[in-house]
Amino acid sequence: MSTISNSTNIFWQECPVGKAERQKLLNQKGCVVWITGLSGSGKSTLACSLSRELHSRGKLSYILDGDNLRHGINKDLGFKPEDRTENIRRVGEIAKLFADAGLICIASLISPYRKDRDACRAMLPDANFIEVFMNMPLELCESRDAKGLYKLARAGKIRGFTGIDDPYEQPLNCEIEIQQNNGVCLLPAALAGQVLTYLEEKGFLQVE
Amino acid sequence: MSTISNSTNIFWQECPVGKAERQKLLNQKGCVVWITGLSGSGKSTLACSLSRELHSRGKLSYILDGDNLRHGINKDLGFKPEDRTENIRRVGEIAKLFADAGLICIASLISPYRKDRDACRAMLPDANFIEVFMNMPLELCESRDAKGLYKLARAGKIRGFTGIDDPYEQPLNCEIEIQQNNGVCLLPAALAGQVLTYLEEKGFLQVE
Repeated sequence: MSTISNSTNIFWQECPVGKAERQKLLNQKGCVVWITGLSGSGKSTLACSLSRELHSRGKLSYILDGDNLRHGINKDLGFKPEDRTENIRRVGEIAKLFADAGLICIASLISPYRKDRDACRAMLPDANFIEVFMNMPLELCESRDAKGLYKLARAGKIRGFTGIDDPYEQPLNCEIEIQQNNGVCLLPAALAGQVLTYLEEKGFLQVE
Repeated sequence: MSTISNSTNIFWQECPVGKAERQKLLNQKGCVVWITGLSGSGKSTLACSLSRELHSRGKLSYILDGDNLRHGINKDLGFKPEDRTENIRRVGEIAKLFADAGLICIASLISPYRKDRDACRAMLPDANFIEVFMNMPLELCESRDAKGLYKLARAGKIRGFTGIDDPYEQPLNCEIEIQQNNGVCLLPAALAGQVLTYLEEKGFLQVE
């Protein structure tokens, strides 16, 4: 086809089975739960726990894990700022497809830049993007260091590491903020419960 | 993180709710139905019809339409050979995620090059990639020309158009081939029935 413009001569295909029909089949509403925070802040743990809790209630969810996707669709991308942006953009576009398919899509990525997260939010209808901020102190994340990455970053063996020599921009208006309680971290199931309650209250777990 | 290699320091996150659990919830098996063929060969029509038939049986499917994705995740890509390859690669990776989520993912793209389709097939476990070849004569597709693209291609206003001045490489070992019957095209529901029968026989429409 044309090489003049990227979007010339491309038509939009509509189909009789749409989001509403799929949501009815699943008895849930498609949405994106976007978990953001530092490495080691507990994003993946929350994602898994939430997925388990939803499954036990008969709800279909799917986790888009930033690290896992870098082995697949995003394997051509590195960690330069423009690559990070493209990485987040693609995950946002895929999350949008999953929400359109009727699933509760759980995206778990550091996603350090506010503008990149906001661009993903803008892809979705209002209220269907639920930003969950793992607001954990850097010291805690660094002390966990399950992947040993903070150590490498401090030793200068990794450059541009979020929280060390690359910024993490906190959300300004996230839907859910996860924090320590008097210096104690809640158990994963309790954290998942916070998100679950939100989803329930907003009507995502059933179709009227 | 590191700029040395794209996949350095990336870990794989496993989760207790996996494909098997999701398939059980949906009572179906995740797979990819990849519909390939010339522009105007009826790919989208088959995709929609199949989606409708599956839905009426309570099965969850999702269509990845090549044109639609070019408005979203693939909007940065054009129609140069390397862009086409990247386009197909991304759709393959996304289709893989949907199959992993337990859905019957219906990908509908011209996908003219054999090596690109085979690369997508290689991403999935054997038998989970079902290639459907819309084997319609160019003359028929051109006579339909619903989008008016063949006319533009013949007039030289679009270059690199599949079937006109860019090759379509027929599948060598596709799972399903759709053809005219004595010069007559079957109705969409009948075509969908062919694919449905295949899915049923191969056990994709239920979990033992």
